[in-house]
Amino acid sequence: MKQIIPFAHQLLKDSIQPGDTVVDATLGNGHDSLFLSSLVAEHGQVFSFDIQENALNQAKKLLEQHNINQVEMIHRGHEHVYEELSDRNIGGVGGAIFNLGYLPGSDHTITTTADTTIPAINGLLRLLKPERYIILVIYPGHKTGAEEKVELLNYLKTLPANEVDVARYQMVNRSDKAPFVMAIYKK
Amino acid sequence: MKQIIPFAHQLLKDSIQPGDTVVDATLGNGHDSLFLSSLVAEHGQVFSFDIQENALNQAKKLLEQHNINQVEMIHRGHEHVYEELSDRNIGGVGGAIFNLGYLPGSDHTITTTADTTIPAINGLLRLLKPERYIILVIYPGHKTGAEEKVELLNYLKTLPANEVDVARYQMVNRSDKAPFVMAIYKK
Repeated sequence: MKQIIPFAHQLLKDSIQPGDTVVDATLGNGHDSLFLSSLVAEHGQVFSFDIQENALNQAKKLLEQHNINQVEMIHRGHEHVYEELSDRNIGGVGGAIFNLGYLPGSDHTITTTADTTIPAINGLLRLLKPERYIILVIYPGHKTGAEEKVELLNYLKTLPANEVDVARYQMVNRSDKAPFVMAIYKK
Repeated sequence: MKQIIPFAHQLLKDSIQPGDTVVDATLGNGHDSLFLSSLVAEHGQVFSFDIQENALNQAKKLLEQHNINQVEMIHRGHEHVYEELSDRNIGGVGGAIFNLGYLPGSDHTITTTADTTIPAINGLLRLLKPERYIILVIYPGHKTGAEEKVELLNYLKTLPANEVDVARYQMVNRSDKAPFVMAIYKK
């Protein structure tokens, strides 16, 4: 059965079209941006946000290795996504992913938190095309991740059911610390 | 995005093969048995359990309307599934579904409860082929359904992760009473 990341990626794969503009809200080491760039193909565009120079450097290497040039890295927090993308007149966003928590192999005290994740989701919801997804991979295994999970779930429960579906996909016979997916679908 | 029943059915559709023997643990009005019979096709077999005469009569009509004859109805509780199917030497079970709660349009005090649902799942896990699913659709909207949900989740969390995956798929921006899916996958 589909594990967490494959499940998240499948929803994006099933909805994103070649030529789309999409968002990687947490660039990190660049693996999601690489995946998104394969979905939007050569005429599409990926906007990827990260606050850490370290992440941008790592991702840049990975993307260069794969000869990817449709990824634009934005060295700002994802809470600025609406402002950044409105300025660029991109039309609508075809999908987005957040891989939350800290950058693997880097400073574990620098993590995403709900006070920027929630504004980023709100901004993306305004930009998102109908019948497309915003995917969150949530990591409750560290203290700030556990706090972020609670705040995000409280927020996501309030999204109006006539405008969006919000699904949770989680393996339950694992540690409470295991990551899980929240999928927001705009109707 | 996939709603609860379509998500449940998709997992069965992706795994059940023509010719398989499968189980509808809660026959009810027969809609799941009808769906399962289309998956196993004419040379397959569906064993369908229900304790209510009323359900068997309703389901019989529906199946006759669709000229289905590969469904064997068993007028006993699903907790006897292991005993019933072992006696028949069916080899292995290719998939199973529980649509829990009460029979729509019938006596709402006659509902499934964890004290028989859990033994039924245990029996089916022994019979289930590898790489196949037992699907539960849980209805926490009535009092006994809410109790059954808690007991089932406590039980499902204990299933060994090296033998089965247990995933929860739920819309979170709905009432707490809305149904959701638990999918048990045998490795």
